[in-house]
Amino acid sequence: MTTLNETHDSTLTSWVASANSGDSDFPIQNLPFGSFRRQGSTEAFRGGVAIGDQILDLAAAHHSGLFTGLAADALQAAAEPTLNRFMAMGKAAWSALRLALSRALRTGSSAQSALQACLVPQAGAEYALPCSIGDYTDFYTSVHHATSVGALFRPDNPLLPNYKWVPIGYHGRASSIDVSGQTFHRPKGQLKAPDAAEPSFGPCKRLDYELEVGIFMGSGNALGEPVSIDEAEDHVFGICLFNDWSARDIQAWEYQPLGPFLAKNFASTISPWLVTLEALAPYRQAFVRDAADPQPLPYLSSAANSAEGALDIQLECLLQTEQMRAAGQAPTRLSTSSFKHSYWTIAQMVAHHTVNGCNLQPGDLLGSGTQSGPEQAEAGSLLELSQGGKQAISLPNGETRTFLEDGDAVVMRGFCARQGAARIGFGEVVGTVLPART
Amino acid sequence: MTTLNETHDSTLTSWVASANSGDSDFPIQNLPFGSFRRQGSTEAFRGGVAIGDQILDLAAAHHSGLFTGLAADALQAAAEPTLNRFMAMGKAAWSALRLALSRALRTGSSAQSALQACLVPQAGAEYALPCSIGDYTDFYTSVHHATSVGALFRPDNPLLPNYKWVPIGYHGRASSIDVSGQTFHRPKGQLKAPDAAEPSFGPCKRLDYELEVGIFMGSGNALGEPVSIDEAEDHVFGICLFNDWSARDIQAWEYQPLGPFLAKNFASTISPWLVTLEALAPYRQAFVRDAADPQPLPYLSSAANSAEGALDIQLECLLQTEQMRAAGQAPTRLSTSSFKHSYWTIAQMVAHHTVNGCNLQPGDLLGSGTQSGPEQAEAGSLLELSQGGKQAISLPNGETRTFLEDGDAVVMRGFCARQGAARIGFGEVVGTVLPART
Repeated sequence: MTTLNETHDSTLTSWVASANSGDSDFPIQNLPFGSFRRQGSTEAFRGGVAIGDQILDLAAAHHSGLFTGLAADALQAAAEPTLNRFMAMGKAAWSALRLALSRALRTGSSAQSALQACLVPQAGAEYALPCSIGDYTDFYTSVHHATSVGALFRPDNPLLPNYKWVPIGYHGRASSIDVSGQTFHRPKGQLKAPDAAEPSFGPCKRLDYELEVGIFMGSGNALGEPVSIDEAEDHVFGICLFNDWSARDIQAWEYQPLGPFLAKNFASTISPWLVTLEALAPYRQAFVRDAADPQPLPYLSSAANSAEGALDIQLECLLQTEQMRAAGQAPTRLSTSSFKHSYWTIAQMVAHHTVNGCNLQPGDLLGSGTQSGPEQAEAGSLLELSQGGKQAISLPNGETRTFLEDGDAVVMRGFCARQGAARIGFGEVVGTVLPART
Repeated sequence: MTTLNETHDSTLTSWVASANSGDSDFPIQNLPFGSFRRQGSTEAFRGGVAIGDQILDLAAAHHSGLFTGLAADALQAAAEPTLNRFMAMGKAAWSALRLALSRALRTGSSAQSALQACLVPQAGAEYALPCSIGDYTDFYTSVHHATSVGALFRPDNPLLPNYKWVPIGYHGRASSIDVSGQTFHRPKGQLKAPDAAEPSFGPCKRLDYELEVGIFMGSGNALGEPVSIDEAEDHVFGICLFNDWSARDIQAWEYQPLGPFLAKNFASTISPWLVTLEALAPYRQAFVRDAADPQPLPYLSSAANSAEGALDIQLECLLQTEQMRAAGQAPTRLSTSSFKHSYWTIAQMVAHHTVNGCNLQPGDLLGSGTQSGPEQAEAGSLLELSQGGKQAISLPNGETRTFLEDGDAVVMRGFCARQGAARIGFGEVVGTVLPART
């Protein structure tokens, strides 16, 4: 079961003043990990922790020699260009470093004078992928998304009979995942209108985003050794925001019988900061199955999962067109949703993925699938918001969209907030569509 | 276009006598790369080249200092525990090392005395994966397999309309791929008989193999930069045998709408030796589309691909049950086939995979999909040989099989042979089914 400890105390403040504003994504209760360097520099990327509007440079902090024991060992690993070795150390090491950092960054800490020199402003930083991603699996955990997209691809058969039994997932492409700020050319591929006799080749005309959360594995499991649902979360390092860009017209023609392929593997973008499961402990919720739905099979069921398997991560998706950018207009919100609507929990995803013996490794990524909520306005993709492209969305500046156009930037944000707990934010993930290559 | 050079001369012999037998998989015209160490030792794995019944230890050969220039640089990279850095060096480096090794291993070479000490008998070696596999994609290039399996999963709709236009592929799991000798526990998962009201959980009852070839990428392409069909093969390092184990009952229940997942990712096994495309040059064949079939779209078409895009790699699949092993009986042949039946060529797979900008990286694996031939006896899986489990296969010792049983070992072999060219063999890939974990 999840327990709260001193790092969760909502009254804690930091000597990094910007962390104490109340609306910062990165108060001292958060302490997410990423990989960064100074913008435009040729420095090596190294591990960092976000605090307020600053980054604590973990390589510099390691050299300060302030930390001891397991926390110091963990810090040394977390200071590397990728977090994989730190992730592989397991929950005790993650927790020891979190506690040491919480104490060192706390108002009144004697570490302040030494660590002050280890801060880099986020405004002057650039990010790398926080870890090397071995394998990436995308789940499909929003029943609302599955139903509404299913209705577009298979009007007669929207939600397939396996959906409420099997945490449906499929393997995705790891090599084309990049960090926030990613730009990519509109993909080309085979397209076929339903009434066309033959496919043609050209730029995707139905380019879309998918609003997801990304779940990063920490310690792995050996091939052949399943992870039980009660052990599952001990293997999970943390969570980020995830935009799984999708070419709907390519997808419609290629996806049968083996699933999406080129429609998805041209680009996927994650937010730079991995928020640890420990930081999210105050936002656990009961996971309740509707009485009309089947109860999960025993390997997907546990008392702890029912009591607190869900997480209320509030999500929003915004769009900034090229025109808006040129006019200095901020991104406009397209929809909001929450990860609490997920039909399957993180623990269920991990238990299912490994039940056949499949091995997960430190740094592996699980996508949640598009997190659409129950209302039409809570849809996590343009495909759903525009009802398959049939209903254009009006933007405040008079433009309209059914799918993404060249120059469009998609911004996703996420946070947890409630009375009595510190806000735990995820920052944002931004990606921009470039014209197709000629 | 492929050109033959002195390394292909079928009259060449080696001072390693076992390479000259005429039926060795590894004559001096082959020179495949792998990663090995002495069996039971704690030595580091390092690169090796198979020659006759021996392995040339590339780390030892590098230390001999016999090689110079690009070949020496390539040798140093190929001597590492994984071939990735060598693969990334590109075709000129691969070719330079091949030529240098061909000359050094040739009868009469002055290098013989120095290299004699660098040989390790294959009988006393164990293998690792030849490279670190970043992403693995499985294609579906046998129209015969697609049609017969399609008929079992979708009797009313066996070959989908996209098949003859799109080189269908999907992402697979890289972490659970291991080298020949792999053993794995029968996977457990959700199973649902067509007439059952609900799924149940238990060991797979329809465990199968898939007879494939594995295609390893050498030099990669940058994200966003497609590889044209005429450049595609320059990026391919080599080919091995590949057994993509499959749990048919898990697959039937889980695969819609996003494709196979747990049915495939519990284990996949490759043969230890990567046969380079250069070694296969004498076995290129014209790639001809049946007049009744659509011609490939322009991005999947080129004069060179039509002239010599196909490869006649003869494949066979054998079974050794636990009873047979106990009685000292050799594996019995289940079927033979050839990669020449592939509906899509290697160049088409690479051009298609990258046409949307997806990046392939050194060491990435492309599976060909099950290579079933046009005849029922040429099927590359038990699913097909047993007609969906309805027709048991009789083995010479009186046993029968519809699907794999515990203790079954599946052996796959492959080779190229014709008059006037040296035999180019792939060795074999073996894997054994262990009982499900209790």
